[in-house]
Amino acid sequence: MTLSIAHLGPPGTYAEQAAFFYVNWLGKSAGVEASLCPYPTIAQSLQAVATGQAQLAVVPVENSIEGSVTMTMDTLWQLDSLRIQLALVMPIAHTLISYGTSLDKITTVYSHPQALAQCQGWLERFLPTVQLIPGNSTSEALQRLEQEVTTAAIASSRAAQLYNLPILASGINDYPENCTRFWVVSQSQTKAAHYISSTSTSHTSLAVTMPANVPGALVKTLQVFAQLGINLSRIESRPTKRSLGEYLFFIDVEADITAAKMQSALAELNENTEILKIFGSYNILPVSSQ
Amino acid sequence: MTLSIAHLGPPGTYAEQAAFFYVNWLGKSAGVEASLCPYPTIAQSLQAVATGQAQLAVVPVENSIEGSVTMTMDTLWQLDSLRIQLALVMPIAHTLISYGTSLDKITTVYSHPQALAQCQGWLERFLPTVQLIPGNSTSEALQRLEQEVTTAAIASSRAAQLYNLPILASGINDYPENCTRFWVVSQSQTKAAHYISSTSTSHTSLAVTMPANVPGALVKTLQVFAQLGINLSRIESRPTKRSLGEYLFFIDVEADITAAKMQSALAELNENTEILKIFGSYNILPVSSQ
Repeated sequence: MTLSIAHLGPPGTYAEQAAFFYVNWLGKSAGVEASLCPYPTIAQSLQAVATGQAQLAVVPVENSIEGSVTMTMDTLWQLDSLRIQLALVMPIAHTLISYGTSLDKITTVYSHPQALAQCQGWLERFLPTVQLIPGNSTSEALQRLEQEVTTAAIASSRAAQLYNLPILASGINDYPENCTRFWVVSQSQTKAAHYISSTSTSHTSLAVTMPANVPGALVKTLQVFAQLGINLSRIESRPTKRSLGEYLFFIDVEADITAAKMQSALAELNENTEILKIFGSYNILPVSSQ
Repeated sequence: MTLSIAHLGPPGTYAEQAAFFYVNWLGKSAGVEASLCPYPTIAQSLQAVATGQAQLAVVPVENSIEGSVTMTMDTLWQLDSLRIQLALVMPIAHTLISYGTSLDKITTVYSHPQALAQCQGWLERFLPTVQLIPGNSTSEALQRLEQEVTTAAIASSRAAQLYNLPILASGINDYPENCTRFWVVSQSQTKAAHYISSTSTSHTSLAVTMPANVPGALVKTLQVFAQLGINLSRIESRPTKRSLGEYLFFIDVEADITAAKMQSALAELNENTEILKIFGSYNILPVSSQ
């Protein structure tokens, strides 16, 4: 059987690299074959899973420098039928790709906004006058690279290799500890879910909205976890899109959903919150650099 | 005396519109003249204030649909010398601007990523096959609009007027209740600060980091406010950029910084947090649509 895995495309993105790593890891542990399916946006790669076009999607969640990937969070909240199966943490090293042979000829740099932001210090130091042009993905930026010495793109060294393009500068991200966390997402009820070994998991992700105009509602929610000794690893607010100042909160906690204390927490949250959505329990797999 | 006010440019952005509103309001109340100075990025408009090139900056903080403007938050955290003087809440109505006379000819749409995101439902419904090209600002997108019928840009109707460009569709944002909150920012110690009447203010903004590996540190911080009866209007996490999973928290509370309960809260926070930065106390001014 072949698993189809959706990811942000075109081929050569960091999401595809994470998907490759996942496929190798999966293949070793379960003898599974997979085909990777690129989509133009993160939202479309998640929708592909919701509609059954693909069985899994590998999507970026959060970068250690630039923070949350809001398109992933908002789409997960809107599509009710998805479940996180696994988290992958991958080191990110950007390269400057160009046909040019010296930095002083470059006038334009293309990339994904997250990659441009992760290299902004380097760009200010070495290319202070270039025009930065954001695009949909790092590998899409490569397709805008013309065969001339004045344009460059920021993407992975793997992408440069894939399209046979020359690297002008390596390791150009401002912080060496640059990591992105990805989630492997399936439909709530699919066979794909069975490919992930699920004894006990280390993390659970959920999101809540509070009743409007109840002061201290967020504190009460967080206290539920604190009082049960459940550690929060992340909290992220997003607008409900109803009115300015109304938020939903994405919360990651360090507990398996089937643990007794977690079941108590969820029972209490059901009482105190307006909407409670659970996105799944999963382990975190570090991705070794290649 | 003339106040110089920095904002995201080129002329025609929503930030410039908010700055105009502010200048009119200020002029009425204090007889002040002002000149507006466009900068290519939000970070540069804040840096202009830090370095004394401009006395004030008007910067977007948060949109009701797309959430936090992370460049504003990160730059405020990095530049220690800035102070929020006032918040402005402005309704946002996007228009599709093009020389084309019918939607079915359009193949490319330029805009700022926030504006593209705020219109994504409309774009999927009416222009499902177009290429979306993100840029640095809505008005910069207008400059990429060619004199032909296949390209369009999303910006304000005011920007269309300013550059004498035809509007093809109006009110194209997915949610009618689309608002952006802006901050008017000065140096901590400048005369500009005196132009803002500062009797009692309604909100205080601050940011904190917690000592690493202290479980429940965020809950303790929020409890400080809850126990003193201070309501939180917003909490936003951002990566510390040190390692994945380490955050700083931007917190807006509904209290004047000089209030006794707020002084108690800050004294307690000084004990429990690693870094505590206070960005100022201010009122919120609603911007009427023009």
